[in-house]
Amino acid sequence: MKIAVLGVGLIGGSIGLAARRAGVRVCGYDSNPDASRAAFELGAIDEQASDIQTAVREAEIVFAATPVGVLTEVANQALEFAPADCVVSDVGSTKQVVMAVGADRRFIGGHPLAGSEAAGVSNARENLFEGAQWYLARVAHTTQAHYERLSDLLGRFGAQPMVIDPEAHDRLMAYISHMPHIVANLLVEQVATAGMHLPATGPSFRDATRVAGANSAIWTDIYLTNRDALITSIDEMGERLAAVRKLLEARDATAVTAWNDSVKAGREALLAAGPAETPLHELHVSVPNNEGVIADIALALRKAGVNIDEMAVNPSVNHVWGNVTLRVHGDEHARLTEKLISELHFPVARA
Amino acid sequence: MKIAVLGVGLIGGSIGLAARRAGVRVCGYDSNPDASRAAFELGAIDEQASDIQTAVREAEIVFAATPVGVLTEVANQALEFAPADCVVSDVGSTKQVVMAVGADRRFIGGHPLAGSEAAGVSNARENLFEGAQWYLARVAHTTQAHYERLSDLLGRFGAQPMVIDPEAHDRLMAYISHMPHIVANLLVEQVATAGMHLPATGPSFRDATRVAGANSAIWTDIYLTNRDALITSIDEMGERLAAVRKLLEARDATAVTAWNDSVKAGREALLAAGPAETPLHELHVSVPNNEGVIADIALALRKAGVNIDEMAVNPSVNHVWGNVTLRVHGDEHARLTEKLISELHFPVARA
Repeated sequence: MKIAVLGVGLIGGSIGLAARRAGVRVCGYDSNPDASRAAFELGAIDEQASDIQTAVREAEIVFAATPVGVLTEVANQALEFAPADCVVSDVGSTKQVVMAVGADRRFIGGHPLAGSEAAGVSNARENLFEGAQWYLARVAHTTQAHYERLSDLLGRFGAQPMVIDPEAHDRLMAYISHMPHIVANLLVEQVATAGMHLPATGPSFRDATRVAGANSAIWTDIYLTNRDALITSIDEMGERLAAVRKLLEARDATAVTAWNDSVKAGREALLAAGPAETPLHELHVSVPNNEGVIADIALALRKAGVNIDEMAVNPSVNHVWGNVTLRVHGDEHARLTEKLISELHFPVARA
Repeated sequence: MKIAVLGVGLIGGSIGLAARRAGVRVCGYDSNPDASRAAFELGAIDEQASDIQTAVREAEIVFAATPVGVLTEVANQALEFAPADCVVSDVGSTKQVVMAVGADRRFIGGHPLAGSEAAGVSNARENLFEGAQWYLARVAHTTQAHYERLSDLLGRFGAQPMVIDPEAHDRLMAYISHMPHIVANLLVEQVATAGMHLPATGPSFRDATRVAGANSAIWTDIYLTNRDALITSIDEMGERLAAVRKLLEARDATAVTAWNDSVKAGREALLAAGPAETPLHELHVSVPNNEGVIADIALALRKAGVNIDEMAVNPSVNHVWGNVTLRVHGDEHARLTEKLISELHFPVARA
């Protein structure tokens, strides 16, 4: 089998590495010759093509893995030059591109739920997709043969192909990724434009705004390509804000509590929906804001074989103490974590 | 000097410990006799009073340190029974209480920016307030003598007393703490009520919703006592959402980028506003989601004397790889961190 990868960054490079590990021949193209050369030298592709037409020749599957802004154009070029029976897919985080190029039955939009802040082919890994869901926007005119060819290869990457409706996909991404970014931006904007002297900010603000002002070179395209789902999400968010405003206006403590409790239950259900079936526990630890404290905690847990599934370390506003939030899976590990941290003489509480 | 502490939880207990360390006699009262006894046994108070009237007898300063919901009532009782020259203060996170009891010139609303997720007197510490800002809602009729008596004692706790207008205080708290909680709730609500099958959630969603559904026993009171500032903040947030909606509707990439870039600058300015004057650097690391990896990183940094000011560990959605975000102060420490982590063979990128 031969595939083509158009755009050899983190995702395209990882597709190349995973495909080559599976015995597939990979031809790569990148508009930046340095990226193409780096991918070749790292063994992510078998050969470098100088243009899209050359890259897709005799390919059975083509992956368009460029930034979102040029994805439609690249996918359209791939469809123009690819063999009549070739499957063309993409890895964009919104599937609206399907609307533009999806009239061609060879196109199946895709989106692997994998990635990293560390971009570029130098960070590509052959196991990036292991265990990762890989959404496929299979539509009415997609043939079974094409779908199977693509999903079989993704399975050989270790990924879990999942069929999803393109519109549902984009709304999901708006909810779990794009809206958190927009809201983070607005929280920062609210404080930054208030003209107040801000002596310090608390941990909830830091957590909520960690992704604020994310790289515009990536995010402007993401916002605009998922425009429709985002406008719907923004309207919903506006309505929800208005509903909370009403509860506050009415000083309705019972309703505020009911709302907050339902969110608590909703959050727990969402967190529990991860791959692990063991219950997830959250622990809060107060620690002095000194070098070495995190090492002490992490070492004690490593010795006991406890995996830290999730951790947040925030300085307290006075930068003397810090707050550590830990999430661990399983009752036994949670008890053990609590015990080990207590033995280090740090105050610890179960959420 | 004798002071009274009404409500001996984490904050009240820490006030007691800090005051006793400073040579001040502390009388404590708590509506829960077990808490009062625990505070006494931990040395946070010199004596236990059975009611507020007894507690405030001969006190020069009274701290009302109960949950927000009963704070006004407790402060009013303290004013009723306290000596004519006594200062009465509180530690509530909203200063609207000032409006209710502030007619008495002996009352000076207060709010220490300290605390921890680990509640209760057993987590109290004599150095909880060291380096912490302690807002004081000094108003027109506050006497200089009263203000100085209170602020001098806070200084002996190691805190930094700061005068703030009560309304500005509450808006600040709405922006940096209460709105992040409300927005976190709404992001969870949006996903939880969508009726979608949610296979996994990304790191931005996790970060933004870490505080969602926070303890209603505390937060319902906080939301309602800061009702006015919150309604203003909600209205502003609604307007900002509408402004972003317009940019998206117009497909205005230039304006989206300008907005996002201004947020980036705003966020950097806010983060830089902390106590450290050295530049803050953010690094992103991809690590396998195994036990021990965090210990490896933390140990390497400890050996080099680098303090981790802030850290977030999130599993990637496939729970095979994780993303670690680190914030460290100073160019030299940032370079060193990057080098040490690269030597551990984890991909690392500067934000």
